[in-house]
Amino acid sequence: MSEIKNQPIQQFLDELASKSATPGGGSAAAIMGAQGAALISMVCNLTIGKPKFAEVESEMQALLAQAEDLRAQLTDFIQADVDVFNRVMAAYGLPKETDEDKTARSAAIQAVMKDATIVPLECAKACAKTITLSQIAAEKGNPNVISDAGAAVMAAYGGLKTAALNVYINAGSLKDRDFAEAKIAELAAIMQDAETTTEAIYQVIKAKL
Amino acid sequence: MSEIKNQPIQQFLDELASKSATPGGGSAAAIMGAQGAALISMVCNLTIGKPKFAEVESEMQALLAQAEDLRAQLTDFIQADVDVFNRVMAAYGLPKETDEDKTARSAAIQAVMKDATIVPLECAKACAKTITLSQIAAEKGNPNVISDAGAAVMAAYGGLKTAALNVYINAGSLKDRDFAEAKIAELAAIMQDAETTTEAIYQVIKAKL
Repeated sequence: MSEIKNQPIQQFLDELASKSATPGGGSAAAIMGAQGAALISMVCNLTIGKPKFAEVESEMQALLAQAEDLRAQLTDFIQADVDVFNRVMAAYGLPKETDEDKTARSAAIQAVMKDATIVPLECAKACAKTITLSQIAAEKGNPNVISDAGAAVMAAYGGLKTAALNVYINAGSLKDRDFAEAKIAELAAIMQDAETTTEAIYQVIKAKL
Repeated sequence: MSEIKNQPIQQFLDELASKSATPGGGSAAAIMGAQGAALISMVCNLTIGKPKFAEVESEMQALLAQAEDLRAQLTDFIQADVDVFNRVMAAYGLPKETDEDKTARSAAIQAVMKDATIVPLECAKACAKTITLSQIAAEKGNPNVISDAGAAVMAAYGGLKTAALNVYINAGSLKDRDFAEAKIAELAAIMQDAETTTEAIYQVIKAKL
């Protein structure tokens, strides 16, 4: 099957809405994050090369490179979420006739569930970085497109909060509680200031409109 | 040019990131909202027809119809944002040689700016309705996909806050202050409880994971 990023938006939305289990919220989170990173790049691309903003030229070049790196990562997570979910389903589908079967199936489920915790956690981290970068875009980018920096922070925030739900749900089914708690702690660290930071960036932008 | 909804996701993200002024935050807002509505439909489609949820069957059917209606509206706003922006640019491009030119140009800009205020306002309204519907999906939908109801509310919230920025910025350039203030008041009414409602729905879902 072709990768989701190669599907028309309409087809993706139709499949998201359908009763098929994939794509789901995890892919939606990655698309929100990727839109956030793309909007930062847009602000950079509409700032770079303009004499009026020569003072921030190198900073905007660096910001663009970081945003494009995050966009590539987040675009990959659109598919990664579906792939890991399909692996979870495959593990649940393993035979469970004998005790040996049951042990092997349980081990397979637990192993893939760790990956299914890591994928949204990494997506959440990339979204959190996108929130941080959007502040620079809002403060130093071309003020004519400051509302796009605002769109960036809101898209990234939506992606972060959505990816977080998938970390909670998958970590919750892990028997290795040390691993699960460590991942939830990593998530908590990046979530801690996200809401306040996002709202602060949004209000700065709103005040400049 | 083909409609944005028919473009592959990768191409849309590339064009969003580019120095082209469109697509921008307004289209990103509409896609966030459409993803939110699609995720509500997903929850409905994974609830309807299951004997376990027979009690909420008719409510889920009604919710699905509403979510699909909102999804269609929000998908239309992806393109509508670009179309109205292009009309704004065309108005700014009108000749301004003579006094007569200037008067006609200014009138054309002001007329299309009203539309450029209405388009994101309507998008914001559809996102706000999506937030409201996601609460029903979270409370009564199949609990196995409750995290997708959480993704729905966050996507719709991101869409709402982003569309709002475009209302503020375009209303700000209107000379007809009565019209502008009326539109900002309409927006304020739907924004008022959005943050609290979104966070409440999110916390209900998180607690159920």
